[in-house]
Amino acid sequence: MGREGFQKMDELELISRLAPTLPRNSSVVIGTGDDCAVLDLGAPDYVLFKTDAVVEGVHFTKETPPEKIGRKALARCLSDIAAMAGHPNSALITLALPRSFEPAFVDGIYAGLNALATEHGVAIVGGETTTNPAGVLISIALLGTVSKEKCVLRSGAMTGDAIFATGKLGGSIQTKHLDFEPRVKEALWLRDHFGVHAMIDLSDGLASDLRHILKASHAGAELLSSAIPISREAKLAARKESSSKPPLLAALTDGEDFELLFTVSSKDAVPLVDAWKKKFPGLPLSCIGKITAEPGLRIRDKQGVRALNVHGYTHFEKS
Amino acid sequence: MGREGFQKMDELELISRLAPTLPRNSSVVIGTGDDCAVLDLGAPDYVLFKTDAVVEGVHFTKETPPEKIGRKALARCLSDIAAMAGHPNSALITLALPRSFEPAFVDGIYAGLNALATEHGVAIVGGETTTNPAGVLISIALLGTVSKEKCVLRSGAMTGDAIFATGKLGGSIQTKHLDFEPRVKEALWLRDHFGVHAMIDLSDGLASDLRHILKASHAGAELLSSAIPISREAKLAARKESSSKPPLLAALTDGEDFELLFTVSSKDAVPLVDAWKKKFPGLPLSCIGKITAEPGLRIRDKQGVRALNVHGYTHFEKS
Repeated sequence: MGREGFQKMDELELISRLAPTLPRNSSVVIGTGDDCAVLDLGAPDYVLFKTDAVVEGVHFTKETPPEKIGRKALARCLSDIAAMAGHPNSALITLALPRSFEPAFVDGIYAGLNALATEHGVAIVGGETTTNPAGVLISIALLGTVSKEKCVLRSGAMTGDAIFATGKLGGSIQTKHLDFEPRVKEALWLRDHFGVHAMIDLSDGLASDLRHILKASHAGAELLSSAIPISREAKLAARKESSSKPPLLAALTDGEDFELLFTVSSKDAVPLVDAWKKKFPGLPLSCIGKITAEPGLRIRDKQGVRALNVHGYTHFEKS
Repeated sequence: MGREGFQKMDELELISRLAPTLPRNSSVVIGTGDDCAVLDLGAPDYVLFKTDAVVEGVHFTKETPPEKIGRKALARCLSDIAAMAGHPNSALITLALPRSFEPAFVDGIYAGLNALATEHGVAIVGGETTTNPAGVLISIALLGTVSKEKCVLRSGAMTGDAIFATGKLGGSIQTKHLDFEPRVKEALWLRDHFGVHAMIDLSDGLASDLRHILKASHAGAELLSSAIPISREAKLAARKESSSKPPLLAALTDGEDFELLFTVSSKDAVPLVDAWKKKFPGLPLSCIGKITAEPGLRIRDKQGVRALNVHGYTHFEKS
């Protein structure tokens, strides 16, 4: 769905307007600007705090089975906890429903939520049901914990770092956006076995999300065109419809991949690839480029190196 | 606004259907069933976790100034932290907006939110903006902390306890629902100076919220009709329009008072009233009845004692 409604302001502009005015207190380690807020509430671990909403007509349709809606709503938040290398802990569910609804629909939403929560050891500790005349909206608030020494931020990328992405990118709208696996265990394994410098989950598209890391880390990057892992769906869509994005552009700019994008020291790149293949043989891991001191995002292909000007979807454009 | 849309199920029915199926884990002290979820995340204090949403056309109108909408959204959550005798800590804001909106509207929402957050030492640590074609919806996720020994639940009322309410009740829809003061400092003072057995905030109406305490505490109650503190607004409304509720009924059943309802040992009742008058001279405190072993809710007036069958608003009926 397009951004046509938001002529006046997009989400990033909103956030940058509002962020400096937000009140803080001594518990805040990270407020806005990373995948989750990070709080020190006096426990040995930091508390991670995240909310995310899915809306009918934006993130799912009237035809989407309720189990998949519930699952997706929670999976998106889990992906943000993964991006900090955290353990998800407990969730509150806000379910806004039209004035008339079928009990079986709500049961379906919760069946999807409960199954994924159970898989990840997440408690669902309540929430709220309210009316929303327009359609269904589910907002999830998720708490997690993360070791103070091992919390991975967006801001840690260093010049020379190798950039990695899990999975295959692009074309998520075909089916994956309802069925993706949040990479919680992969992120925990990464932080336990390698020094992950910076990490984010791919929600807005590779080009856009990598820019978040670069901005937070005051760095640039060069991607290797031939190394970008393009999904089968993005390739098929390009073949079927001449109006579709070229597959590489889809991999760079489609939203909702929910894979991990992270950087490690270049000396760790080869050992990581080897260890990953043994540990997660079913999930591709691709080294797609490197962090540079020179700011900006560039891509290298047979023709040479050029600036990458395409952006991924912003939240308001998300399909 | 009425409940007409929700022919099929109301919120309490929904919760009671869903609660037994929700996954738990070892962090959960209280899941559903109290004003906030209570979690043990390894810190000296428990973590309180709450979400609450306000929706255009349900909790405010198109004409409500945005500052008051933002303030109300946060104040409702603060009132729930107060009901557990907790300290509010940090909030995430989910702002669902129609496809076109004025930046000044969003600035207004945040001005109201930020001012109240600052007053209560609450950090706003991020959130999300998303589209909601129908209108504005704000969901707040709020974390708080509470001393493990002093967390006040709904379930602690004991036979013979005196029942107290702060403030004056009924008629909140006239203006108070946009301007109420969440009773955070009063609740902290109460728990520090008196053994509060059970507490809840009055969001659904006295009769309905007292029933939540009675159900959780496996007890009954007898209210004293002449002791119920009726607001000026409820009295005026009854005088102006013959179709209005009688004032006592308004005080018993109108929603959104956001005062504290709590019980203490009967021996503490007189010392509490004396100490309260000194500490909070501007805020009435009324002893409105007592907890009984006999189940059910009764009211005593000049005619004697009778069962109280009126309920407050459920969430779906909230004006």
